[in-house]
Amino acid sequence: MLILGLDPGSRHTGFGFVESRGSRVTLLDQGAFSPPAKAPLPERLAFLGEKLAEILDRHPPDVVALESPFHGINSRSLIVLAQARGALIAELGKRQLEMFEFSPSEVKVAVTGNGRAGKEQVARMVSILLGTSGRNWSSDVSDALAIAICCSRRYRMDRVVAFHKSRK
Amino acid sequence: MLILGLDPGSRHTGFGFVESRGSRVTLLDQGAFSPPAKAPLPERLAFLGEKLAEILDRHPPDVVALESPFHGINSRSLIVLAQARGALIAELGKRQLEMFEFSPSEVKVAVTGNGRAGKEQVARMVSILLGTSGRNWSSDVSDALAIAICCSRRYRMDRVVAFHKSRK
Repeated sequence: MLILGLDPGSRHTGFGFVESRGSRVTLLDQGAFSPPAKAPLPERLAFLGEKLAEILDRHPPDVVALESPFHGINSRSLIVLAQARGALIAELGKRQLEMFEFSPSEVKVAVTGNGRAGKEQVARMVSILLGTSGRNWSSDVSDALAIAICCSRRYRMDRVVAFHKSRK
Repeated sequence: MLILGLDPGSRHTGFGFVESRGSRVTLLDQGAFSPPAKAPLPERLAFLGEKLAEILDRHPPDVVALESPFHGINSRSLIVLAQARGALIAELGKRQLEMFEFSPSEVKVAVTGNGRAGKEQVARMVSILLGTSGRNWSSDVSDALAIAICCSRRYRMDRVVAFHKSRK
């Protein structure tokens, strides 16, 4: 199953494609796109949608995973982040892709076992799990990959639960 | 000048096209679109973008005006609203449309002269200014028309200011 993890941001949106087979996860592609910082808002949001469309064309995923927005930030930042999410999520809707959301602590638990792990610890575990140690990614990219890995584990667990339920 | 006023919402998005000539404003078209309430989020946001694209094709506006998001609401509602805005604003960006934002009190002042006017007072003044008394619109529609009227007045005032500045 091909999973796209997305870490939306108005400045930098990270993405990571992870192929999940049983308990194994392998890296297919990763990167980030950044709208021109001084462009007007409509242009920047359209840019996010266009770039996402390009990577969805390149590797059509089976599911897409995003982090749910963090409520602790101030309302100005929350608006900026949620508008970027809206532009991206609308693009997923056009292709009728299935989307899952995970909280920041769910992602940290799935990847490191610790819901309060720091960014560096998450990045290190992402590299170990994908067998890509030695590669240095920006935090947007390693966060996106962490979200994809979280999704692969949760998805698998839900299927195991569904399997056991169906046998009852 | 043709102005599109938009009142974004995840449940109902109101729109109003107002033709502005000198100090006169006339109504061209108005309405609201509502995504299927039980559809998944990506589908609902894609629906907003598609419907906006349809009305932009029908009447290509010169400028588009939106109300800036209200900071007083809780963060959950703010996320939902800002995501809907993001999907809509991205659609404006695809067409390189110019967008203006006005605060709720700026809109109320422009339409009624009172920054704390109630919804009914705004709706009544919108009807009077557009010469459409007797027509009953939902608040999404009259709010969208109020935003368009606010934009026409502010735009004209800015041009008058620019004119006087250029003569100095």
